[in-house]
Amino acid sequence: MALERLKKQLEFIVEIDKLKHIFRQNVLIKDRRNENDAEHSWHITLMAMLLKEYYVHPDIDLLKVMKMTIVHDLVEVYAGDTFCYDEEGNMDKVAREKESAKKLFGMLPEDQEQEMWSLWWEFETQQTHEAKFGACLDRLQPLILNSRTEGHTWKKPGVNKEKVLERNAVMKDYAPRLWEYVLQELNIAVEQGYLAE
Amino acid sequence: MALERLKKQLEFIVEIDKLKHIFRQNVLIKDRRNENDAEHSWHITLMAMLLKEYYVHPDIDLLKVMKMTIVHDLVEVYAGDTFCYDEEGNMDKVAREKESAKKLFGMLPEDQEQEMWSLWWEFETQQTHEAKFGACLDRLQPLILNSRTEGHTWKKPGVNKEKVLERNAVMKDYAPRLWEYVLQELNIAVEQGYLAE
Repeated sequence: MALERLKKQLEFIVEIDKLKHIFRQNVLIKDRRNENDAEHSWHITLMAMLLKEYYVHPDIDLLKVMKMTIVHDLVEVYAGDTFCYDEEGNMDKVAREKESAKKLFGMLPEDQEQEMWSLWWEFETQQTHEAKFGACLDRLQPLILNSRTEGHTWKKPGVNKEKVLERNAVMKDYAPRLWEYVLQELNIAVEQGYLAE
Repeated sequence: MALERLKKQLEFIVEIDKLKHIFRQNVLIKDRRNENDAEHSWHITLMAMLLKEYYVHPDIDLLKVMKMTIVHDLVEVYAGDTFCYDEEGNMDKVAREKESAKKLFGMLPEDQEQEMWSLWWEFETQQTHEAKFGACLDRLQPLILNSRTEGHTWKKPGVNKEKVLERNAVMKDYAPRLWEYVLQELNIAVEQGYLAE
């Protein structure tokens, strides 16, 4: 029984190695190759430690935030990455990801399966401060990469300043100092022609 | 002053994007490309959540563990990855990494620079239970990858079962159930010719 539990956990750990092959639209600063989900999740989890002070309620539970950011993209192992500005892809995103969560989290012992569902769903639905701060990081990190790669994903069809502002809006109310930075970077991007007005 | 603080934090966040280009000796299970430090750090940080129960003192501070595992390889941004079985490279590893830490952590505001030093050094010196559990994960994860890739790094010159056992020894005293798994996998690897006796 106990051995069965460890076996399940190890199989899950093996399976999620696949997240390192799920590529995002963003590219890395140095060589412009696409970033993968594991790298992105690592980056925002570390950012959680450094930027917590900018959240309107800096006394949020950092452990909860870090757990959420580290697991938030796991469902993409089967569902793939959906570009945030892909309106069609986002229509069935939740359904696809729920299927994926069922399959992936179902590999774990029941208590940990529940914990994964609960963390992922909290992050998705953004009803708590921890999830809202996680969302700030999940948006800020690609914005930073874009600002250093001449707006790599901002130049894609259908993207403009209004849509990027909308995507980052959670910072306006919940991390106003980070929001100021967002506005500043988007203005520069428009000026330099990396982002449509 | 406050703006200066955020600017430093953002420059640090940009700089550590480079960790995604620091490649380890291990390869990923699916396509055998080398794993990078950001991916490895993500993987072991998630493993911390799942495997804490196997540590001899399961009431350790998980937040501290996750902070350490997420930052433990940052110094390799400048110092590069040192293969754990490279005896020559390991002779000046600490000196090289301390130089790197000084340069990298020095980009942050002083309080966060101190926190980074403190987390990294705690992990390196392994004097606390949180650091020891982190070390278990840092060894177990490449062992899992090796066990699924026909012992990719175990076949490198100078590696044998004795050295791998020594490398993983922290689990013997501190995570005996994981140690059993280690022994089992190494026996299989020797039987199958992926690891020298």
